[in-house]
Amino acid sequence: MAEKKNNNILRNFNPSETRGKIITCKAAVVYGPEEAFKIEEVEVHPPQKMEVRIKILFTSICHSDVDAWKAQPESRRAFYPRIFGHEASGIVESVGEGVNDVREGDYVVPIFQAECGECKLCTCEKTNTCESVSYTNTVMLSDGKSRFYTTDAKPIFHFLNTSTFSEYTVVHSACVVKLPSVADDTRILKRLTLLSCGVTTGVGAAWNVANVHSGSTVAIFGLGSVGLAVAEGARARGASKIIGIDINPHKFIKAQAMGVTEFINPKDEEKPVYEKIREMSEGGVHYSFECSGNSDVLRDAFLSSHEGWGLTVIVGIHLTPKTLPIHPMELFYGRRIVGSMFGGFKGKSQLPHFAQQCLQGVVKLDDFITHELPFHDINEAFQLLIAGKSLRCILHL
Amino acid sequence: MAEKKNNNILRNFNPSETRGKIITCKAAVVYGPEEAFKIEEVEVHPPQKMEVRIKILFTSICHSDVDAWKAQPESRRAFYPRIFGHEASGIVESVGEGVNDVREGDYVVPIFQAECGECKLCTCEKTNTCESVSYTNTVMLSDGKSRFYTTDAKPIFHFLNTSTFSEYTVVHSACVVKLPSVADDTRILKRLTLLSCGVTTGVGAAWNVANVHSGSTVAIFGLGSVGLAVAEGARARGASKIIGIDINPHKFIKAQAMGVTEFINPKDEEKPVYEKIREMSEGGVHYSFECSGNSDVLRDAFLSSHEGWGLTVIVGIHLTPKTLPIHPMELFYGRRIVGSMFGGFKGKSQLPHFAQQCLQGVVKLDDFITHELPFHDINEAFQLLIAGKSLRCILHL
Repeated sequence: MAEKKNNNILRNFNPSETRGKIITCKAAVVYGPEEAFKIEEVEVHPPQKMEVRIKILFTSICHSDVDAWKAQPESRRAFYPRIFGHEASGIVESVGEGVNDVREGDYVVPIFQAECGECKLCTCEKTNTCESVSYTNTVMLSDGKSRFYTTDAKPIFHFLNTSTFSEYTVVHSACVVKLPSVADDTRILKRLTLLSCGVTTGVGAAWNVANVHSGSTVAIFGLGSVGLAVAEGARARGASKIIGIDINPHKFIKAQAMGVTEFINPKDEEKPVYEKIREMSEGGVHYSFECSGNSDVLRDAFLSSHEGWGLTVIVGIHLTPKTLPIHPMELFYGRRIVGSMFGGFKGKSQLPHFAQQCLQGVVKLDDFITHELPFHDINEAFQLLIAGKSLRCILHL
Repeated sequence: MAEKKNNNILRNFNPSETRGKIITCKAAVVYGPEEAFKIEEVEVHPPQKMEVRIKILFTSICHSDVDAWKAQPESRRAFYPRIFGHEASGIVESVGEGVNDVREGDYVVPIFQAECGECKLCTCEKTNTCESVSYTNTVMLSDGKSRFYTTDAKPIFHFLNTSTFSEYTVVHSACVVKLPSVADDTRILKRLTLLSCGVTTGVGAAWNVANVHSGSTVAIFGLGSVGLAVAEGARARGASKIIGIDINPHKFIKAQAMGVTEFINPKDEEKPVYEKIREMSEGGVHYSFECSGNSDVLRDAFLSSHEGWGLTVIVGIHLTPKTLPIHPMELFYGRRIVGSMFGGFKGKSQLPHFAQQCLQGVVKLDDFITHELPFHDINEAFQLLIAGKSLRCILHL
C-alpha cells in the first residue's frame, strides 16, 4: 500500500538492495559559514548499533538551521563541511543492532531532542531532556565518527542529531519517532514533517510547559512558525485573548487566521509594549511567550505577565552572551520565567499521540506550509525564510 | 489571665485610658544612615480607619533592618528620621474604624507583607502579594501621614508597614495577625515573635514555594536565621540531605543542631561549590536556596540543582542592580528559579495555623533565639547581628 500511494517518491526505494551498504545519494553540503548549499553526491554509511538510516522524503527549514549556518568559525558551533537540517519526515531504510522499536519501511520523523528512555532524566516525568544523547553531537555517539563522507572520503559533520538535508541520513534510535500508519499517505506525511521541530516546539510550550488554561490571556512575542504554533496551541486550549507582537505587520494577516486575536507592532507604540499589554489584559497576561531570541523583547515579555501568577516561557534561541534581563528581586512579585525545549515533549513516547491529535484537527498543520519546492532549490527556500516570506517551505526530496 | 501571666510587662497597659488619644512613649529613632539608634520620647497617634495600634512587647532584628539602616541618602530607600523594626509581637491597644478581626487585648504579630483579603491578588491562591498595601509605604495609606511624631511635632517615617522599634506602633489592619490564645503567656509570645518575619520567610520558602519532599536533597547558601529556618523547614519535611554553605565555619555548630547534615565552606574548596554539591547529591540537589543576597552565590545555587527538575529559590535580598547571572538558554535544561517573599505565606489567613504548628513542635523556634536584651540596648543588638554573633536577639520592651 505504501508503494502505491507513494509510488512516485519511492520508486528508487529498495531496502533489500542497500541494507548494510554505503549509499551514495544527494545531499546539501555547506563548506563554510553562510556559504551556499551545494547539492552533491555524498556517501552515507550503514547504521551502527542503536542507529537508524532514514530515507528522507520531506524536509523543511527552521531558524535554528539559519542560526547554525551563519555561525562564524570562532564560534564553537561552526563545524564544516556539514549537513544541516533537522525538520523532516521519511521512511526507515535499515536499522542497526539493537533497534527494536522501528523497522524497515516505517514512516518516521527524526527529532533533535533525543529520548533514550533509559537514563535518569528520561525516566523522570518532569523533564524531556535526555542525558545519553546530546543535541550538541556532531558525530555519532557509538564510535565518534560521522556517517557522511564526501566522494573523496572526507567526513562531513552531523547537525542536531538529524542532518536531514540529505536523501538519506543516519540518526541515533533515540532520535526517531514512528508515525501512525496513515503516514504512508504522503499528503499526511508531508504535514507531519512539522512535528519534527517547529509545531511541536510551539504547541508544546503552550500545552506542556505553560499549561495554558481555558479563558486565559496570552501574549506571543515573535510571529514566526514557532510563535504561531504557540498561538495554535493556546487557541486549542481555549485562551480568550491571544495578543501577537511583531515588528513585521505582514505577519498579522496569517496570524489572525491562526488564532491570534489582537496585534501590537512595537514600532507603532509610544509606550513600552508591556504597558500596552497590561492595559489590554487587566494588569497583565497569564502567559507570555518569547519567540524572538531578543533580550529586550524577553524583558518586555516578562513584564507583560501579571504580578502574582504570570508565567513567561522562553522559546526563542538566544545567541548573545547576555544574561537574563531581570533583577533577582523582580521574581519576588510572583512572576515566573522558565525555558521550553522541544515544547516539553518527550519525543519518542509522546509525539505519536500528538500526531494523532494533529490528524484529528485539534491542531491545524496546513496553514504552516506556505511554500513547497524541490530539494535542489534549498538556497531559495533559505532566502524565503530569512526574508520573512515563508513560514515553512517544504522541500521534496 | 493575660494580666496575670504578663503581669510585669503589662503593668502600664490600660487601653481604656489611651484609646483615641496620642500616646507618648519610647522609641528607637534613627536620624541618618548608620547613625546610632536614639531611644527617645515620641508621640504615637491613634489608629485611623482600618488601622491597629499595638503595644509592642518583644521585637528582634533582621538583616533587612540592617540593610535599610545602612541605605545612603542617594538611595530611594533612605527616609529620616525613621523608626525601623519589623519582627515583633505585642498586644492590641486600640483599633480604628472598620477593624473587626482583631480587638483590644488580642495578642498579635505585625507583618510587613500585607494581606487585605479583598484585592485581586489576595483573592488568588497562587500568590501572597497584596495589591492594596505595599511594603514600600513610608506613611499610612489612609491619609498619607505618619502616626509617629517627635516631641517637637516633626513626622517620623514608618518602615516596612510595621516600625516595631517602639513601645507602640500603628499598622494597617492588613498587617496584623491574631495569635492563638496561648500567646497570652509571654514565654510563648516571645517565641512567636519569630513568625513576624525570619522563621516564616525561611520555613515558608521550603514548604510553600519549593514544596520540599520527603527524601529529597537540599542545599542552603547562607546560614543566618533565614537559611536555618529553611533547614528547619526542610528537616520537618523529611529531606534526606541538607547541605549548608557558609564562609563562616562558626555557623556550622548551630546549623548541625538545626537539621543541616553536611557543610561546605567555599573558602576550603578548590573546585566551584556547585561541582562539589553535584558530587554530593548524584548530579545536583532537588532544591537550592539562596539566602545570602550575593549574585555569585546565586549562580552557584542555580548550578548546584539537578538538570531537568532542580529548583532554586531566591530568598536573600539583592541590593545591587546586577541582573540574574543566568543565560536564557541555561533555563532550557529544566533548572528553574523562583523568588520567595515572606515564604509564600498569606500572613493573615495562614500564619495562625503556622503558629499552631510551631507550638506543636513541627518547627522548633527556641534555637533561633541566641540573645535577649532590654530595648535600650538596641545598638548592642544590632552589632551582635552584624558581627554574625547572634541569630535572633530578642529585645524586651
